[in-house]
Amino acid sequence: MSMDSNFDPSSFGSNWDAKAFFKNDRGFVADKLSEDVKEKLTMLGAYARGSIIKMTTNAGSGHPGGSMSSLEMYLLLYSLAKLRPDEPRWEDRDRIIISHGHTSPGAYSALGYNGFFNVKDAEREFRLAGSPFEGHVERSVPGIEWDSGNLGQGLSAACGKAVAAKALGKSFHTFVIMGDGEQQKGQIAEARRFAAKTKLNSVTALIDYNKLQISGDISDVMPQQIAAGWRSDGWNVVEVDGHDLDALYAALKTSYAAQGTDAAPTVIIATTIMGKGYPAIENDHNYHGAALKPEQAREAFVALGLTADGYDDLDKLAETRKAGTSVTLPAFPTVEPKVKQGEPRTYPVDEKVDNRSAWGNALVDIGKVNNIDKADGLACVVYDCDLAVSVKTGGFAKEFPDNFIQYGIAEHSTCTSAGATSSEGVLTFWSDFGVFGVSETYNQSRLNDINHANLKIACTHCGLDVGEDGKTHQCIDYFALSRSVFGWRLFTPADPNQTDRIVRHISSTYGNALIVMGRSKMNPISAPDGSALFGTDYKFQAGRTDLIRDGRGVTVFCAGNVAAEGVAAYEALHAEGIDVRLISSAHWADFHEADLERIAEFGKIVTVEDHNVNTGIGVSLSSELFAMGLSAEIIKLGVREYGPSGKATDVYKLMGIDSGAIVSAVKTLLTQDSTPSKNAMASA
Amino acid sequence: MSMDSNFDPSSFGSNWDAKAFFKNDRGFVADKLSEDVKEKLTMLGAYARGSIIKMTTNAGSGHPGGSMSSLEMYLLLYSLAKLRPDEPRWEDRDRIIISHGHTSPGAYSALGYNGFFNVKDAEREFRLAGSPFEGHVERSVPGIEWDSGNLGQGLSAACGKAVAAKALGKSFHTFVIMGDGEQQKGQIAEARRFAAKTKLNSVTALIDYNKLQISGDISDVMPQQIAAGWRSDGWNVVEVDGHDLDALYAALKTSYAAQGTDAAPTVIIATTIMGKGYPAIENDHNYHGAALKPEQAREAFVALGLTADGYDDLDKLAETRKAGTSVTLPAFPTVEPKVKQGEPRTYPVDEKVDNRSAWGNALVDIGKVNNIDKADGLACVVYDCDLAVSVKTGGFAKEFPDNFIQYGIAEHSTCTSAGATSSEGVLTFWSDFGVFGVSETYNQSRLNDINHANLKIACTHCGLDVGEDGKTHQCIDYFALSRSVFGWRLFTPADPNQTDRIVRHISSTYGNALIVMGRSKMNPISAPDGSALFGTDYKFQAGRTDLIRDGRGVTVFCAGNVAAEGVAAYEALHAEGIDVRLISSAHWADFHEADLERIAEFGKIVTVEDHNVNTGIGVSLSSELFAMGLSAEIIKLGVREYGPSGKATDVYKLMGIDSGAIVSAVKTLLTQDSTPSKNAMASA
Repeated sequence: MSMDSNFDPSSFGSNWDAKAFFKNDRGFVADKLSEDVKEKLTMLGAYARGSIIKMTTNAGSGHPGGSMSSLEMYLLLYSLAKLRPDEPRWEDRDRIIISHGHTSPGAYSALGYNGFFNVKDAEREFRLAGSPFEGHVERSVPGIEWDSGNLGQGLSAACGKAVAAKALGKSFHTFVIMGDGEQQKGQIAEARRFAAKTKLNSVTALIDYNKLQISGDISDVMPQQIAAGWRSDGWNVVEVDGHDLDALYAALKTSYAAQGTDAAPTVIIATTIMGKGYPAIENDHNYHGAALKPEQAREAFVALGLTADGYDDLDKLAETRKAGTSVTLPAFPTVEPKVKQGEPRTYPVDEKVDNRSAWGNALVDIGKVNNIDKADGLACVVYDCDLAVSVKTGGFAKEFPDNFIQYGIAEHSTCTSAGATSSEGVLTFWSDFGVFGVSETYNQSRLNDINHANLKIACTHCGLDVGEDGKTHQCIDYFALSRSVFGWRLFTPADPNQTDRIVRHISSTYGNALIVMGRSKMNPISAPDGSALFGTDYKFQAGRTDLIRDGRGVTVFCAGNVAAEGVAAYEALHAEGIDVRLISSAHWADFHEADLERIAEFGKIVTVEDHNVNTGIGVSLSSELFAMGLSAEIIKLGVREYGPSGKATDVYKLMGIDSGAIVSAVKTLLTQDSTPSKNAMASA
Repeated sequence: MSMDSNFDPSSFGSNWDAKAFFKNDRGFVADKLSEDVKEKLTMLGAYARGSIIKMTTNAGSGHPGGSMSSLEMYLLLYSLAKLRPDEPRWEDRDRIIISHGHTSPGAYSALGYNGFFNVKDAEREFRLAGSPFEGHVERSVPGIEWDSGNLGQGLSAACGKAVAAKALGKSFHTFVIMGDGEQQKGQIAEARRFAAKTKLNSVTALIDYNKLQISGDISDVMPQQIAAGWRSDGWNVVEVDGHDLDALYAALKTSYAAQGTDAAPTVIIATTIMGKGYPAIENDHNYHGAALKPEQAREAFVALGLTADGYDDLDKLAETRKAGTSVTLPAFPTVEPKVKQGEPRTYPVDEKVDNRSAWGNALVDIGKVNNIDKADGLACVVYDCDLAVSVKTGGFAKEFPDNFIQYGIAEHSTCTSAGATSSEGVLTFWSDFGVFGVSETYNQSRLNDINHANLKIACTHCGLDVGEDGKTHQCIDYFALSRSVFGWRLFTPADPNQTDRIVRHISSTYGNALIVMGRSKMNPISAPDGSALFGTDYKFQAGRTDLIRDGRGVTVFCAGNVAAEGVAAYEALHAEGIDVRLISSAHWADFHEADLERIAEFGKIVTVEDHNVNTGIGVSLSSELFAMGLSAEIIKLGVREYGPSGKATDVYKLMGIDSGAIVSAVKTLLTQDSTPSKNAMASA
């Protein structure tokens, strides 16, 4: 047995090698489990349960109960799905998503005994700071596809992987394993309707139906008709004993074989026993999330038949754990689509266009230039939640109907599915209103980001420019939210031309991105010579600000929707003989030092934003200037309360972020003494 | 007909008065609709449809289609539910929640023709900036209970109102009307399971089943088995023709009468016709969200039989609209529970306690001192999502089982329900892990806040102190998110004693509040004399910072979980003869000027936070100091990337926010030249 020097070979025979043994059975090729395979899986089950207990007892925390109830599913999948333990990121592998991520010890054990890594490393380092073997499953571990832990998202991720398979012309199958308490999350219903609608039978769902959750019996905590619910959403439901290898295999094999037929997708509801294998904790919900004490662990090893000399190495594990983590495993590589940007479009300054139309047009261009509807073209999809007409993805839908994915009014699941699709090398967009694509799905975007997704979210109707839809539809938190997610870059184009450039830029740059647009039409911003400022010669520069007009005395700093107000204010002031410096920011990030100095040069700044003024660009800019030791008087214009429903121009005026308000703020600064009220430097 | 001078009385008779006419039928008392009532409702239907068209055509936008399909439901409810048009906030009134808030013209029309206000005002000012008649239903309009517009939340809000009724010992009924496309939102399934579990038959749900959504036929956009889905979650399903007044009445009456029995709650699936009443737009999804042109509107008036002289006043409406809004309506009053704080507990400094236990203990105290389980006690409930053991609400659940609401793993619906309960004068808490109570449900909290709710969310396991649960469970965005919601106050107690005081403070202060706690135990912070700093003499002061230790040279500014690290750093530095000033912030808001000066006094600041450093307290503090014209060298310690899974102390160290990192930062500042690198003042 080559995979683990501490593994007791006597049960298997000295030449037994998991990788070689299961190799020819992978892909669920056999009609039924051979006796030999079954015998090996049964024995692995005992060892894997021992490892689950070692991991959690050694860590002093974790979730043994569900790990032990899910174990037969993990063993069958990691042993018999189309996987290559030596090449865990093989592109044609089946994908296995673990939705109830707290059962990580179960997954790590099954993977370890299949040769994906040395199970001893997981036993020693589970939940040790800096180790890849984290408390919830993480992609840092070979074989793990998706970081999870927030329940209810796994099926959505699986659907997203299946959409990617279609887009890429691949035939891999995606399995997702969920908990039963988890079925209380509404997002799951969104995903299963999508899967049923699109006959996504390349997905097989499994539910670990151990009937317990943290607080007790699931039927006490929250009664559910799990099978009826799935059936009502159009799934094929199979109920099996989740510890019966033959029954589970048969269900998996049947669902696997149905891929590509006209069949509905299948969910396997596997009745199991929490804590299965150690009778003292079986069906006891207290072991959902509590580790066994060492003396219990030793009893469990005996109950599991793990009596070989040297099996109980808890003391040694505890001792070596003290030395800290020493395992390094290969990182999960990102799959970067190679995207051609195409030819930028320049909208003339004398025609009113909305940014969202510029986005929709650029999207069609990207599709065409990358031949996304051709066999040798780029894999690319656009997700929609019943708003294509408003968010201007209708042109794309018409041109590329097969690449357009209508998910209905189901934003949570859409966000996760789109994130999972994007992580597979498919250029993936999702377009929605700001309150849905930013505010409603913030946590889904956070999880996508932890998963190194590459999702481009294009939000329209942001800020007060949502107009008549009113306060429930005012997305005025896009800066605070996107900036709270480490890898989520925010773009706020100032006009249709800049929108065009940014869409092309983010399409060809890896990572999660958010473009924020309003609803109104505007004249593209002109340069002082009357040509389009973001025209033919303009090239978008990430992280840099844009000088729209130069002047002296005061800098007006704006972004996105309000850039047009900035231009109008500049012109009004210019007519009065006052020339201010007008700068806009299309990429909200840490700013370049030279840009910060240019903004602060006159010691007087007006910031303008279609965003909550407490958490927006004014605060962020102030903080950066402060860190540089720069000082300035500043007036921050922004949203200070929930705004009314009305025409955007009226709302801007009422809320004090229109050109008139900018003009007033500039004049206030110009007539004030230029020295800020206090300066602590003196006392330093 | 007194209610509207522009209303054509000839159809009704000159003495007809809606308020008087329906008064004795309110509460669905009649076994069936009388012919007289039916005749009046039918005629009102024509007029109300006319008003829907006037509102939307006059505004040039809005949603006539669904308003016209939902109309018979609106008329029956606003005419026959237990309501008082002259006293729209009467406390015993039935509650009517509109979940598909875009059908506001339908609701406004039905309310207007029932005398809640003058329908002409709505026709003139619909969607005019500053008017109460906003694009989506808002509580600014008498009769409207809940601001909506983000779909999928209405049933949750209705459940929350019904929970409030129970807690208050009231017998009002709550109706909620939803769209059919909206049924694609997962949150609805969470709410209906909760309602079924708790036999919440004081709720009646209605679905406007017009079979269309923005993008077309709902069965093309996203096929659903609506009736089967509701049945699978345990509801009684009644299917009726939604334009048949008799059938609708019978269904409503039956469900209304079932309140308080053992029956499951009822959903009425009302088959309707989008655009009903004007055949040219019937069943045309393009009129979901588009206004008729004036010439179409005039055709529609004829089709509706509205041919009275002067009925077509579109031109006059357009003319008077130009003058701006002139309507003022009575504001929706908040219902403030009168809460006794009880006696604070002081935890001794030599015993380790976790903040979450202090929260759980204070909660039990609040329950006891306010007699919440007594008939004459305070109405108070605590919501849980299957985490009571971890979030320490188990003590409350044991003491007050009837006041403890187990919602299962269903955070979206829980947040909305809890918000709605809190808005009814019930002291309402919800406790969860930070990633669920802050990140996952951000948008639900935003909507609660727009609705002036009074929900106290107590989150444990926040920040990196979540420990072994790892990155998917690290809530490091509580400042950025709560601060993006105008009325959501954030509290970050430094130790168990301050936790105790803050729980008592927020319980007795109206408004949405978030308390953020970690997971670890700590010694309560001592004063220099060894007594508890937040002990017997301490009184929590909102908006002020706390001086934990005084010193000179450098200010260390911390909050919440990391206050203990600040104390440890202070002590380590003190041992080396360095005394810094240590200040913590338990209430993150705009700071008091005197506090800001005290923080900046030495021109050297270290901020420490268990939060994303890009959007946290360091940035906010810098911005405030900058606005005051104060300068200082600053080192911001905080979370800069997703953290690992491990013991909190190990994770803090690895991520550079432990006491050692603070000591290093202080020393860096002390050995640096005290002048910031650049100062733009010179050039000003």
